[in-house]
Amino acid sequence: MNNLNQLKQQIVFIVEVDKLKNVLRQTSPIGESRRENSAEHSWQAILCAITFVEHANEPVDLLKVVKMLALHDIVEVDVGDVFHYSKADAKNLFEREFAAAKRIFGLLPQALQEEYMALWLEFEKRETPESRYASAIDRQIPLILNLNNAGGTWLEHNISKAQVLEKTQHIAEGSMRLWDLTKSMIHEAYESYEKVPK
Amino acid sequence: MNNLNQLKQQIVFIVEVDKLKNVLRQTSPIGESRRENSAEHSWQAILCAITFVEHANEPVDLLKVVKMLALHDIVEVDVGDVFHYSKADAKNLFEREFAAAKRIFGLLPQALQEEYMALWLEFEKRETPESRYASAIDRQIPLILNLNNAGGTWLEHNISKAQVLEKTQHIAEGSMRLWDLTKSMIHEAYESYEKVPK
Repeated sequence: MNNLNQLKQQIVFIVEVDKLKNVLRQTSPIGESRRENSAEHSWQAILCAITFVEHANEPVDLLKVVKMLALHDIVEVDVGDVFHYSKADAKNLFEREFAAAKRIFGLLPQALQEEYMALWLEFEKRETPESRYASAIDRQIPLILNLNNAGGTWLEHNISKAQVLEKTQHIAEGSMRLWDLTKSMIHEAYESYEKVPK
Repeated sequence: MNNLNQLKQQIVFIVEVDKLKNVLRQTSPIGESRRENSAEHSWQAILCAITFVEHANEPVDLLKVVKMLALHDIVEVDVGDVFHYSKADAKNLFEREFAAAKRIFGLLPQALQEEYMALWLEFEKRETPESRYASAIDRQIPLILNLNNAGGTWLEHNISKAQVLEKTQHIAEGSMRLWDLTKSMIHEAYESYEKVPK
């Protein structure tokens, strides 16, 4: 395939994944009542990854982290956003997301297709320094939003402090410093709530 | 300042620039009537930069390009999005954006503050391979969206083909291949419109 055709095929991919702007998450931007979408979340994840990189547990290839985070939610174009605290939504999730990744990354020229598929799988498995750090950032962001939205999603769905801590503890694998700060922020926030289980 | 305080200060910055999710642009996501915001646009810019990098005119440090694109619109938290075809909006724009950059990046610890300010200025000046390529991508994206939204912003504001070509020609400085394809797409699109000046 010549270079011009490569570019045309890449644009087809970009047009397809524009749909990520329509996938709504549970969290809201700070101070807003609307739900945020997975595209704006992905920008915020990248910005956090760049800004917090000195706090990663291990040295990371930051470009690789950024690529993972730019790609990590693209499967939601087919599968939708899955609420971490919902067990029903999580059923066969990996299989459904894998099929989505095959279809969507399959729109790209071969070399990019392979690179993006590998990056997405690496992110999912959390077995490398980059994926552990990227995943910590991804999990950290809803905490920052909820903590600045007076409880946000947690209060709305009656999620207990123990559930939040359990679902977020793998932040520690990517950044102990982020996890230590997060834990103390969660404890402090739940002290201030009245209507949810402690 | 110790590491924990650095992190706390970085989170203050992230909370402040969460507001970028509320800054609306002129363009709409493909097939949608709502305006997109500058945060989701920034994700798309980063994804395009990663995906199209083989088409850059000169070799680029891709991590630097990504950082620029993650940061390039943050000044809009104070200044708002400026429509490229409006002369009134452009008055004193650089001065207003510079003040915004000083305030917002000023929330960060010193080293990051200096790095982000320098990256933002480099992007604005378009004098390096990275900033020329990043700027080409930033200008290319509304074209992809408008071309897939049956004219979008151009038809709505009665923007002529000559105006579009004039405002987008610096894509050529970052990627000749992107510019050649874009030109032919613009010509083709305007052939299909009936109500705007050719």
